[in-house]
Amino acid sequence: MRPKIIQKLIDQFVKFPTVGPRTAARFVFYLINLPEKETKDIAELISSLKENIKICPLCHKSFERNGDENLCPICSDKMRDKSTIAVVEKEIDLEAIEKTKKYKGLYFILGGTIPNIKDEQKKQDVRKRIEELIKRVKNDNKIKEIILALNPTTEGEITALLIEREIKKEKSLSENLDKIKITKLGKGLPVGGELEYADEQTLSSAFENRK
Amino acid sequence: MRPKIIQKLIDQFVKFPTVGPRTAARFVFYLINLPEKETKDIAELISSLKENIKICPLCHKSFERNGDENLCPICSDKMRDKSTIAVVEKEIDLEAIEKTKKYKGLYFILGGTIPNIKDEQKKQDVRKRIEELIKRVKNDNKIKEIILALNPTTEGEITALLIEREIKKEKSLSENLDKIKITKLGKGLPVGGELEYADEQTLSSAFENRK
Amino acid sequence: MRPKIIQKLIDQFVKFPTVGPRTAARFVFYLINLPEKETKDIAELISSLKENIKICPLCHKSFERNGDENLCPICSDKMRDKSTIAVVEKEIDLEAIEKTKKYKGLYFILGGTIPNIKDEQKKQDVRKRIEELIKRVKNDNKIKEIILALNPTTEGEITALLIEREIKKEKSLSENLDKIKITKLGKGLPVGGELEYADEQTLSSAFENRK
Amino acid sequence: MRPKIIQKLIDQFVKFPTVGPRTAARFVFYLINLPEKETKDIAELISSLKENIKICPLCHKSFERNGDENLCPICSDKMRDKSTIAVVEKEIDLEAIEKTKKYKGLYFILGGTIPNIKDEQKKQDVRKRIEELIKRVKNDNKIKEIILALNPTTEGEITALLIEREIKKEKSLSENLDKIKITKLGKGLPVGGELEYADEQTLSSAFENRK
Repeated sequence: MRPKIIQKLIDQFVKFPTVGPRTAARFVFYLINLPEKETKDIAELISSLKENIKICPLCHKSFERNGDENLCPICSDKMRDKSTIAVVEKEIDLEAIEKTKKYKGLYFILGGTIPNIKDEQKKQDVRKRIEELIKRVKNDNKIKEIILALNPTTEGEITALLIEREIKKEKSLSENLDKIKITKLGKGLPVGGELEYADEQTLSSAFENRK
Repeated sequence: MRPKIIQKLIDQFVKFPTVGPRTAARFVFYLINLPEKETKDIAELISSLKENIKICPLCHKSFERNGDENLCPICSDKMRDKSTIAVVEKEIDLEAIEKTKKYKGLYFILGGTIPNIKDEQKKQDVRKRIEELIKRVKNDNKIKEIILALNPTTEGEITALLIEREIKKEKSLSENLDKIKITKLGKGLPVGGELEYADEQTLSSAFENRK
Repeated sequence: MRPKIIQKLIDQFVKFPTVGPRTAARFVFYLINLPEKETKDIAELISSLKENIKICPLCHKSFERNGDENLCPICSDKMRDKSTIAVVEKEIDLEAIEKTKKYKGLYFILGGTIPNIKDEQKKQDVRKRIEELIKRVKNDNKIKEIILALNPTTEGEITALLIEREIKKEKSLSENLDKIKITKLGKGLPVGGELEYADEQTLSSAFENRK
Repeated sequence: MRPKIIQKLIDQFVKFPTVGPRTAARFVFYLINLPEKETKDIAELISSLKENIKICPLCHKSFERNGDENLCPICSDKMRDKSTIAVVEKEIDLEAIEKTKKYKGLYFILGGTIPNIKDEQKKQDVRKRIEELIKRVKNDNKIKEIILALNPTTEGEITALLIEREIKKEKSLSENLDKIKITKLGKGLPVGGELEYADEQTLSSAFENRK
């Protein structure tokens, strides 16, 4: 019953993260009721997004394409600590860490976690990204620590285990990998959390990390 | 810190219904990681949306522009009952009513409700739409009933009151308006609802509408 | 590890409606920290509850035992309309209906609904209550309407169907049952509800019950 | 309209933690519909609760009164580590910590936190409890560490600050207080948490506590 173009656009919006069919329909009706100039603006921004954005070949962060700069502002920043790499699932996690202003090292974006991806293609992409990470660490003897800054969810933990296993396999072959420290984020009570509702592992960590 | 184009696109997505800054950022990173062909597709769909869509001059529903058809499929459908108009806030409400397959009359989309719009311009738009509705009803003596199918929320009720008041003002001037019946949707317990948690007005209506 | 009396009391509180083990434990620690006078007061209230309360033999509502009054204040109220009985699941539903001040008839409390009771004993109790309802209606020719004021949930609907079926079975045997009207509460949008999120049955009813 | 005894019991249940008037009413109707034996049992358990329970004079934990044991099973357990005291808000927090099986030291239950108590009497009680804690630590030179195991909520943090301040005041007067270490639970991402939604302080702590 719906016009084909509306259905096609709903089908695209449904693939956006957190968007269901009802919200997708609301997006399309929102666009239909916008002045033409504004829909054209949005279309232009989306269309030119990838032309204006470079993906850093080292850490996979997006950054503004300008001049010949090849690396992202973090990877090319001489003041950042080159001895630590924080491995994150996605760019938003990197942004969250940057906001704390506490971490001064480098990053590596995995682009996903292993188990929550049904898509076999995507799974291969993450595995390739892990291989790339290991190659990077092998060849860069400034790196002393890999922080697996993945979510303490089942998916994050399984992905972290996989990365550790892959690194272990390669250890004998690489002097640098052998000396490297692999760490994970500390678990504990979040600000606003309550002991009463904390699971045992979280509470154990909160006790161990007391200070 | 974010590339300008990313921030601009986030600023656009934030204006979409139900989207906050965090979700908007997720949308943009989702687009960045899409194959270029797909972002171009989405941009093209958005860009050509308004060229492919006509808004029905009678009821304000969107429909596919094809051939010279001027009215939407509902308004031009000879089988629909021309004696009732259901006044709805937005096109999604019309879609929800069509899904029930119980209503066979015509529609009129207001495009919003009066009080929840801070935007003065938008408020004027709704008021103009109400004037347009009244003019339509005045001149179309097939119309015997206006169903104010607005949400039973404060906004919906106030808008319904306003429409009733405006119609009353005009009644003496128009023979058709004078004979017309104005109705509102029945209140009651929704499927899955519980008496225990129903407010008094809902429960009173459920008793009155028993059958 | 917990003292036996604490565990026993937790086990009792867990059987209270909506109470889980964590909340039950909080209740017990709350009581432990109360002045002794207050725990004694609570215990006394609970202990004497049934001595101070009578259950109306006609409608099963609880009421204060005082004097020789045998029926509850509603059943014995000469001003109430004796021609309608509202069948409700539980006393709280009766209280909700009374708060609307719109219904002036009598009640009959079922004490539960058929399907959501795993407890076979309880199921029998509800079935017996239904038999009792039918007997009451058979013998009281003032009753002209039975309002099945059950929740429009699966459980409520199934129980309503069962009651209708049982009444039909008996119809040929009873002149009064034959003339009686059986009604159900009207469905519709509740106050504060939105068309967009309403299911099709609720929305259909809202259209049918418009006025 | 409700029988007095029902209203009185509702008024008592409303004072239970997490219970509102509607839930309180459901509790009472639940009790009314119970066999008399069971309401008597519940009343008896509540009535004899305080006779059967002792409060440990050292840590304020409740325990079963039996024989002449004066201290609770934790305080009197020779295997527990006497050098650490975990200060908790309430007994349920102590239970949560015990479940982790990681902490082997002693406890001290405050009975509340300072700011979320409107009740001036209760506030005095907590302040007295803090004085009592300080006296205990002053006189027991086995204690080497006080773990302020309070919720990382505003209330918990303010109470922790107050305890630290009170201890500091007394430090010069007591050799033991002077050597004692005061720690707080580690903050971090809880199991199942996500970086993207973590606040900055939680995420900073997760980085600091990485391992």
